[in-house]
Amino acid sequence: MRLAELSERSGVSTATIKYYLREGLLPPGERITATQSEYGEDHLRRLRLVRALIQVGRVPVATAREVLGAVDDTALDMDERLGIAVGSLPHQTPEDPDDPNVSAARETVEGLLGELGWPSDRSYPAGESLVTAVATLRRLDYPCDVASLLPYGRLAAELAVSDLDMIAAIGTPVTQLEAAVALTVLYEPVLLSLRRMAHAEESRRRYSTTGDGDPDVPAEPADG
Amino acid sequence: MRLAELSERSGVSTATIKYYLREGLLPPGERITATQSEYGEDHLRRLRLVRALIQVGRVPVATAREVLGAVDDTALDMDERLGIAVGSLPHQTPEDPDDPNVSAARETVEGLLGELGWPSDRSYPAGESLVTAVATLRRLDYPCDVASLLPYGRLAAELAVSDLDMIAAIGTPVTQLEAAVALTVLYEPVLLSLRRMAHAEESRRRYSTTGDGDPDVPAEPADG
Repeated sequence: MRLAELSERSGVSTATIKYYLREGLLPPGERITATQSEYGEDHLRRLRLVRALIQVGRVPVATAREVLGAVDDTALDMDERLGIAVGSLPHQTPEDPDDPNVSAARETVEGLLGELGWPSDRSYPAGESLVTAVATLRRLDYPCDVASLLPYGRLAAELAVSDLDMIAAIGTPVTQLEAAVALTVLYEPVLLSLRRMAHAEESRRRYSTTGDGDPDVPAEPADG
Repeated sequence: MRLAELSERSGVSTATIKYYLREGLLPPGERITATQSEYGEDHLRRLRLVRALIQVGRVPVATAREVLGAVDDTALDMDERLGIAVGSLPHQTPEDPDDPNVSAARETVEGLLGELGWPSDRSYPAGESLVTAVATLRRLDYPCDVASLLPYGRLAAELAVSDLDMIAAIGTPVTQLEAAVALTVLYEPVLLSLRRMAHAEESRRRYSTTGDGDPDVPAEPADG
């Protein structure tokens, strides 16, 4: 397909596509004439991933280039490529590494990894984000010991299994890696919204006194 | 305690505390002299919540005031107060409500609520964020049917039970509500970090070819 059709099918303007081509986020099309190139389904798919990263995940262009480089690096195995790609996504680091809350948080995270049976000698790019979040909980004196964090870790592990099953059902290694990166970013707001909705539903079950507390018990008729 | 001690114990500057007092985010202390007031543990606790909302959750001051108003409104039951407080936190709404992806996403979310056994006639403030996230997945043509979302919904429900158990173990209704709001905000980065770490760990188990794929199998010695 030509540039105009790629733009129409992807919903990305031709100016933006040209910018992504210049920045190396999209591979060049096949040159047909001096001024026209032909693009394929690969370009369309890659464009969706670039939009997920940049427009939804608010990933800087240089970071997106790094993520895509890892996706395409066939010299590495699948685990390494996925690790580098997802690990390149932006993450938080503690603002003040000398804060005793940060070192205490680091110990808590190590304890958590032990309980979960995850190797603590491997480096997790998201580990520093977790240390930052736990240090904030400590600083504000909210519960953040291993016991409080463990249900979150266990559920994250279950989620990872179902996520990777979903991804394994998708085509080739490159498309799987593309989907893994996109779904990491795009399912984060899904998860946070569902957690808040689940809180609302669980609160209704436990605390509501307005008559709809227990969905299995029919409301009393208005006139006895 | 006096203002200086409240500042020291909370780690919030006296200027910021005075600003929060003026904005009605903190109740006034007990007036001792024309220029001095006395503050209690309630102030310290409330200050922690205000920091969690404003400094960590990046909630605007007007929104924080609304959240705190609901926490303190003893005319409502616990479920209503929690619903209004957490529901007042910022959430996403679809950018283009006429987009067919938005109406399709709304149908998917209703189907999901049905599968989860959550009443679909109640309004979930986070529901619009979920519709937005699902519409984005649809627009970019990534999996987002009820079957893909269901594992997320089920795990969110489990998490809500353990979250509300953690909160139920905390003191009075007001302190429980304060903790519920703070933990909603402060555990979001915990959950997202752990999901990414769990992905890394699950990927290692499935795909790693660099010899540490199975932690139960010792590596071959370097010299046979």
